[in-house]
Amino acid sequence: MTHQVLVGGRWRDAKDPVGAFTANDPAQGVPIPGEYPISSWLDLAEALAAGAGAAPALAQAGPDRIAGCLDALAAGLERRADALIDMARLETGLPAASRLRSSELPRTTGQLRQAAAACRDRSWTRATIDTKLDIRSKLGPIGGPVAVMGPSNFPFAFNAVGGGDFVAALAAANPVIAKANPQSPGTTRIMAEAAFEALSASGLPAAAVQLVYHFSPEDARKLVSHPLIGASAFTGGRAAGLGLKEAADRAGKPIYLEMSSINPVFVLAGALKERGRDIAAELFASCTLGAGQFCTKPGLVIYQEGPGDGGLSEAIEAAFNGAPADIVLGRGVVRGLEAGVERLKKLGAELAAGRGEAEGPGFRFRPALFRVPAARFLKSPAEFQVESFGAVSLAVAAKDVGEMTAVAAALEGQLTATVFSARDGSDDAAYAVLEPLLRRRCGRLLNDKVPTGVAVSPAMNHGGPFPATGHPGFTSVGIPAAMTRFAALHCYDNVRQDRLPFELRNENPTGRMWRLVDGEWTQRSIG
Amino acid sequence: MTHQVLVGGRWRDAKDPVGAFTANDPAQGVPIPGEYPISSWLDLAEALAAGAGAAPALAQAGPDRIAGCLDALAAGLERRADALIDMARLETGLPAASRLRSSELPRTTGQLRQAAAACRDRSWTRATIDTKLDIRSKLGPIGGPVAVMGPSNFPFAFNAVGGGDFVAALAAANPVIAKANPQSPGTTRIMAEAAFEALSASGLPAAAVQLVYHFSPEDARKLVSHPLIGASAFTGGRAAGLGLKEAADRAGKPIYLEMSSINPVFVLAGALKERGRDIAAELFASCTLGAGQFCTKPGLVIYQEGPGDGGLSEAIEAAFNGAPADIVLGRGVVRGLEAGVERLKKLGAELAAGRGEAEGPGFRFRPALFRVPAARFLKSPAEFQVESFGAVSLAVAAKDVGEMTAVAAALEGQLTATVFSARDGSDDAAYAVLEPLLRRRCGRLLNDKVPTGVAVSPAMNHGGPFPATGHPGFTSVGIPAAMTRFAALHCYDNVRQDRLPFELRNENPTGRMWRLVDGEWTQRSIG
Repeated sequence: MTHQVLVGGRWRDAKDPVGAFTANDPAQGVPIPGEYPISSWLDLAEALAAGAGAAPALAQAGPDRIAGCLDALAAGLERRADALIDMARLETGLPAASRLRSSELPRTTGQLRQAAAACRDRSWTRATIDTKLDIRSKLGPIGGPVAVMGPSNFPFAFNAVGGGDFVAALAAANPVIAKANPQSPGTTRIMAEAAFEALSASGLPAAAVQLVYHFSPEDARKLVSHPLIGASAFTGGRAAGLGLKEAADRAGKPIYLEMSSINPVFVLAGALKERGRDIAAELFASCTLGAGQFCTKPGLVIYQEGPGDGGLSEAIEAAFNGAPADIVLGRGVVRGLEAGVERLKKLGAELAAGRGEAEGPGFRFRPALFRVPAARFLKSPAEFQVESFGAVSLAVAAKDVGEMTAVAAALEGQLTATVFSARDGSDDAAYAVLEPLLRRRCGRLLNDKVPTGVAVSPAMNHGGPFPATGHPGFTSVGIPAAMTRFAALHCYDNVRQDRLPFELRNENPTGRMWRLVDGEWTQRSIG
Repeated sequence: MTHQVLVGGRWRDAKDPVGAFTANDPAQGVPIPGEYPISSWLDLAEALAAGAGAAPALAQAGPDRIAGCLDALAAGLERRADALIDMARLETGLPAASRLRSSELPRTTGQLRQAAAACRDRSWTRATIDTKLDIRSKLGPIGGPVAVMGPSNFPFAFNAVGGGDFVAALAAANPVIAKANPQSPGTTRIMAEAAFEALSASGLPAAAVQLVYHFSPEDARKLVSHPLIGASAFTGGRAAGLGLKEAADRAGKPIYLEMSSINPVFVLAGALKERGRDIAAELFASCTLGAGQFCTKPGLVIYQEGPGDGGLSEAIEAAFNGAPADIVLGRGVVRGLEAGVERLKKLGAELAAGRGEAEGPGFRFRPALFRVPAARFLKSPAEFQVESFGAVSLAVAAKDVGEMTAVAAALEGQLTATVFSARDGSDDAAYAVLEPLLRRRCGRLLNDKVPTGVAVSPAMNHGGPFPATGHPGFTSVGIPAAMTRFAALHCYDNVRQDRLPFELRNENPTGRMWRLVDGEWTQRSIG
């Protein structure tokens, strides 16, 4: 059986698909019954037209109705929890209880409800009113449907339907054209069934959420640069991301990309001395969490080598040596990791710990820790910074703070950068040197804490300078900031009250919405 | 004599310049004494290194010192008012009293002082604090010097030194590498002398403001895509803008562009009947203000033709027919307008009013109004939307609201869109149809008011969808919004108080700064 796409407000067969694919069970390495179509441009053309048609209706529907839909979707996902968790476990090999049920599903529904609250609150629109000149502005929808292409590693939280980018785009009143990750089409289908039901229950246009499962790279570029598209969001590998970016940029279409990050962790000398073994345990856990398939996995650990490392080397090597092989998302992940291992070897890094046979069926990989002297790293810094998606990390042994500083100065843009330093102040001088170098190279700067675990907080930045993402001013996690990516700045000059959006009228529409009126943030109505 | 560039914190001769140029007096059409160098890459390489070196020091200096510099620059411009106005009048032909002294210089110094106030206030950084998770974020400098390339039409307010983009970039704590507009190098030099003095007086790094006068298009692309650049800003023509955009995009470097806009004005049937002649007078004034050399000049006027136009056609044609030739910024403007006239004729538009001999010396152009039936416009909408920079406008005569709607739907992204409608409500149905079409196609939507005159208000949006600009979410006018273009989102996770920027510490650094703490906007300190 071939599954149906959700296009133009109804589930239907793909039109003239260019092919079909199956998802695989990575635990066993076998295909999962059921085929998914690879859409031709026909489906995308219809989705674009329907999405563009739904955009004004969605904007008109207003934030309360969109909030209702987001809440309904959260509830719908909870009602489907068993089916979702069974399917996601089957498609991704991720643990059902410890990860999918207890952590990722609540995170996903929590994010939906935060976005619903932000919709109702409306403060995210940054309504700004100049009463003397009668000029008023706010963030509004970006002007067309948003294409969302999700990653493989979070089947719920970053799913193209119901995940972070989807939620941000829809909460900002934009229709979504979602492309499933080919790793988890079944999970995405169930999420889309819940979304379709939620749209209908809340009276929103049926074409406000559309789903296809796959399309060609050429059609992807055509989609993100199409005149009817409002913006796009992509989370995945750097090569694919850069291809989409080029197409979207040329057409002047906003695109938000999360493309790669090796999340350097600097362990300063005082911290090593103080708690080397504890840090080793934290780092090992962070490097191997979710089989290392996290965008914030520490791929690079820079520390001051020598006998004073407080047991860090010994402890982290023992941990890697004792690590079992983990199920990974697919054959492609194994291949990518094997290629990464070869690349590191060729560059002159040595295997420090882990690796070895990955017993068992399906797609598995045994965590590996490589090591290289900082001087060697500094000879080929770009090559050493190619991300390995999975449990491969590189320890960089520096002779002194000078070498650590040189490594920091050679880093590309990153999602995160972390510094472990001593509590007694002995690392403060080194920190002061490193901090400005890291600050301009990362989105989130952490101290004494591993970077995996990206809280859905208004203060979060899951973003960073190119090539980690496409623009250093935006985050893809955190409500309401993530919503502003899918917004245009709408200014009204001398427009009468009854023609203004409610957010900009004299009366505060909720009585609680924060607005910048004549230079002061206030919840009051005007006049 | 060849003037010196300001590079690396000192005035010096250009290094190995590729040539030299003179500015022209457009009123007489003759060169102004004094040569300006066309910089080679040597100057830009040094400026990039010096700017990158100044960036951390500028960030460390803190907002109060930057505010002091902006205020000092405003005062320095006022002290140099006579010299500035003389030079700008000579270089641009703009009226000294009515425009440069009474309007543009106060606007420029006012903008500097607004930015200084925003620096001191610090609320623009959008400090967001999650006390439970101890995650804190704010906008910070973008990570390198900002290249600013200014336009010719506002020698003070949009000057690459002291104008809007400059002010926004510097106020957000970024060094600026300015390129003068070749039309007004002398004005820019005086502005830079004031800026250099202000930097020194306020204890900021001397390389925080640098100036070159000209460089090749190849070097421009190299500059905006250079690894050391933080971001770029460009205001000018579409072809040059798109070339810079491509280079910057490919390197993943933010670039903010203002490239073109024809600022459509729709005059609905009821408004015509009610006050056609008054609207004609307003429109004529707006089309010819500053010799039509405004980015918000109405280049397209769409109205319902027929006897019920309330005298609009007659009145606007009489006004255009009676208009004298205006001095324009240079020979290039005249050539561009002549080309625009030919293009409109070839497309089938007829000259409705104006034109004829432009008597007098120098570079002059007599305002012209063309007319075309909406049906003809709709056959070649892209060609009819090529901007003519100067006093050429096109009236589009529509048979009915349906044709007006079709014109609206065929519009490219614009800085502004305007609707004149009746006060008695008779146009409300037509407005309701037009509004959503215009809303997604423009940055600022005006009612019953001409679009020229861009107030420096926090509520202003001088931006709009591509190809008017490069991104619909940003404005280049309006403090503090314009500053956020040159900012990166800096997140701090588990970082101790004494290592945080002051804006994110528990204590509110000013006692008045607005921060989003645990979901509530507040001016209070924490704990």
